[in-house]
Amino acid sequence: MIILGLDPAIRTTGYGVIEMQSSSRARILDCGVIRNHGRMPHSECVRRLAGGVRELIAAFHPDCASLESPFVGDNARTAIILGMARGAILTALAENNIAAYAYAPIVAKRAVTGLSHARKEQVALMMANEFSIAVSDIPDDATDALALALCHGQRAMQTQLDLLGTPL
Amino acid sequence: MIILGLDPAIRTTGYGVIEMQSSSRARILDCGVIRNHGRMPHSECVRRLAGGVRELIAAFHPDCASLESPFVGDNARTAIILGMARGAILTALAENNIAAYAYAPIVAKRAVTGLSHARKEQVALMMANEFSIAVSDIPDDATDALALALCHGQRAMQTQLDLLGTPL
Repeated sequence: MIILGLDPAIRTTGYGVIEMQSSSRARILDCGVIRNHGRMPHSECVRRLAGGVRELIAAFHPDCASLESPFVGDNARTAIILGMARGAILTALAENNIAAYAYAPIVAKRAVTGLSHARKEQVALMMANEFSIAVSDIPDDATDALALALCHGQRAMQTQLDLLGTPL
Repeated sequence: MIILGLDPAIRTTGYGVIEMQSSSRARILDCGVIRNHGRMPHSECVRRLAGGVRELIAAFHPDCASLESPFVGDNARTAIILGMARGAILTALAENNIAAYAYAPIVAKRAVTGLSHARKEQVALMMANEFSIAVSDIPDDATDALALALCHGQRAMQTQLDLLGTPL
C-alpha cells in the first residue's frame, strides 16, 4: 500500500510518499515541498498545487492520501485561502480516484511519537528513525506530511476502520 | 469577448456565460447551476465543480472569468469549505489560462442595477431585460453569476483597467 501524505497550504505544501510493507514496517519513497512564491497570484498557486499532486500521483501511483485536517482558527480570511489550497489538492486527488482521509495534527503526532503535542523536531527524529534516513534529508515542511502518511498507513494496514481519519 | 461569471459555493455554484458585443451590448450564451447533493463528500463536490467549469470552458471558450469575492463572515469552518469550492474552480480556470477577476457582490449589483443593495429579484429583472429573456429562464442561483459576468464585461470593454476587479 502506497500512501501520499499532504500538509496543504497555499504557499508551502509538504508531501511525503511511503510504502507500507506491513502494519509496522514502512519505507519512504519521496518527500518534499511544493513551494509557491509569496507574490504569486492565488490562481497560479492552486494551479501549481494541483499540478504538483498530479505529478506525484503519476510517479508513485498512491493507493490513498492522508491530509492534515484544517486548523480552524478564528480568521475567516486565512481560512478561505487555506480552503483554496485544499480544494485544488482534493480536486487532483478526486480526479484520479484517490481516496483522501483527514487527520488532526495531534492524532498524527500521537500515532508516530506517542505524544499528542510532540514538537516538530521530535516528529522529524521519529520519521528519520522510522525510515532510516538522516533528519537533514527531511525538509522541514515535509515532516508533518510523512507523519500523516505513516499515521494513516498504520491504521489502514491494521484495518482499524474505526480509527481511520475522516474521509474527505 | 466572452465572459464566464461564477458564483462559487460547495453545494450550488451559479454560472452565466455572456458575449460582449460592445461596452453596452451583451448577449447571453448560457446560464445555470452546478449542483452537488448535500450528502456528497467534499472530494466529489470539488471534482464536479472543476469538471463543470472545464465543460463550460470547452463549450464556450471564455476569454476571462468573473467571480464573486468571497463573503468573509466570522465562521472559519464555513470559510474553509467555501475556499475549497473556489480552489477547485480557480484550478480549472488557471489550468486553461483563463484570467479570473473577483468583484464584491455590492459592486456587481451596483454595476447592473445602479443599486448596491439590490434584491435578488431586482437583479434578475435587470438581467432578463438586458438579455431579452424571461426572468423564469434564469435559475435563481445563476442571477448573481450573470451580474458578475456583465459587471466585468462592461468594465473590460471600456478598458477601465482601474475599475477591473481583483485579479485572482
